[in-house]
Amino acid sequence: MTEKPAKTSVPIHELLARRWSGRAFDGDRPVSRADLMALLEAARWAPSCFGEEPWRYILWDRNRSEFSWQKAFDCLNPGNQVWAMNAPILLLALAGDTFRERGTANRWARYDTGAASENLCLQATALGLMAHQMGGFDADEVRESFSIPSDYEPMAMIALGHPGRVDGLDSALRERELAERKRRPLSEIFFEDSWATAMHR
Amino acid sequence: MTEKPAKTSVPIHELLARRWSGRAFDGDRPVSRADLMALLEAARWAPSCFGEEPWRYILWDRNRSEFSWQKAFDCLNPGNQVWAMNAPILLLALAGDTFRERGTANRWARYDTGAASENLCLQATALGLMAHQMGGFDADEVRESFSIPSDYEPMAMIALGHPGRVDGLDSALRERELAERKRRPLSEIFFEDSWATAMHR
Repeated sequence: MTEKPAKTSVPIHELLARRWSGRAFDGDRPVSRADLMALLEAARWAPSCFGEEPWRYILWDRNRSEFSWQKAFDCLNPGNQVWAMNAPILLLALAGDTFRERGTANRWARYDTGAASENLCLQATALGLMAHQMGGFDADEVRESFSIPSDYEPMAMIALGHPGRVDGLDSALRERELAERKRRPLSEIFFEDSWATAMHR
Repeated sequence: MTEKPAKTSVPIHELLARRWSGRAFDGDRPVSRADLMALLEAARWAPSCFGEEPWRYILWDRNRSEFSWQKAFDCLNPGNQVWAMNAPILLLALAGDTFRERGTANRWARYDTGAASENLCLQATALGLMAHQMGGFDADEVRESFSIPSDYEPMAMIALGHPGRVDGLDSALRERELAERKRRPLSEIFFEDSWATAMHR
């Protein structure tokens, strides 16, 4: 795998620094059921508001059910299909927008589901797998294709697999794959005492 | 710190297993600036849709500005105040609901912000700190108190500090602090091939 640890101003845990969203998958190497279980367990133990666990995941394993995998793949935007075609696993993360016992709106559903998916991706990193979340897919199509109830919102498709050779990507994607990872400066994102007030050092 | 590693059906990375939302903080021990920077860096390197990085954080450090910390503390629900009073740091996670360059709605803003906060909490675990996210706070009051613009949504207050003695909590909270961590069974949360279809083993 291309290693692109985050260039941080202070050290962070290596698992957090190493996670990144690559595109070069090894299309010939399946993901074991044991690894998949570990990914799902990692997501399961994320925190959630009132312990609701509003996240749900649908898994498609090309080596188990190519037909279903293809149907999920067909929901991806073409720009994602060009590289996700080599991912043996696709996952969909969904957020349930109602507290099931109270019946009221859960305004943390997406927030909590994002945390669960981050856990899943970090566990992938820990196992030497690569996970790449995508917002670019047709949510209506995925809802229809897989009978998703109206109170669950499809949030992200996740391409998952073992890392593959970068030179399997076309030149534009290869360039992105090797480019340095970037983030906004800390001062744009983190404030102290009030909005838009820079952190004290 | 009370250690309550998740009881998982298969092993997951120890950082993910060890993170949990305790309530027993050491009120006398400040959090160093170096540790705070590491937490914020960890959040910063979360993934986001189109690289938007929609998350923002406001930090309140009781040992730097007691007045501001108190103002943030006053926004918490009473049920959280009884234990968060010992947290030397409060943070607010906010999600920006518009893509800044495109000007269109960002339906992943909360999802991505949840991932950033999970990174922050995991980094806290890595540093021997404890982070506890709270949905129970008055979002309108916090918006007004800290001049938060209308296109950012206050999602979670986070109590942060070094772990303290469990017997500093009242008996009901102490019981919660020592209770086993629980999650829904995997089969309720994870499906394969289609909605509500159990995963194949």
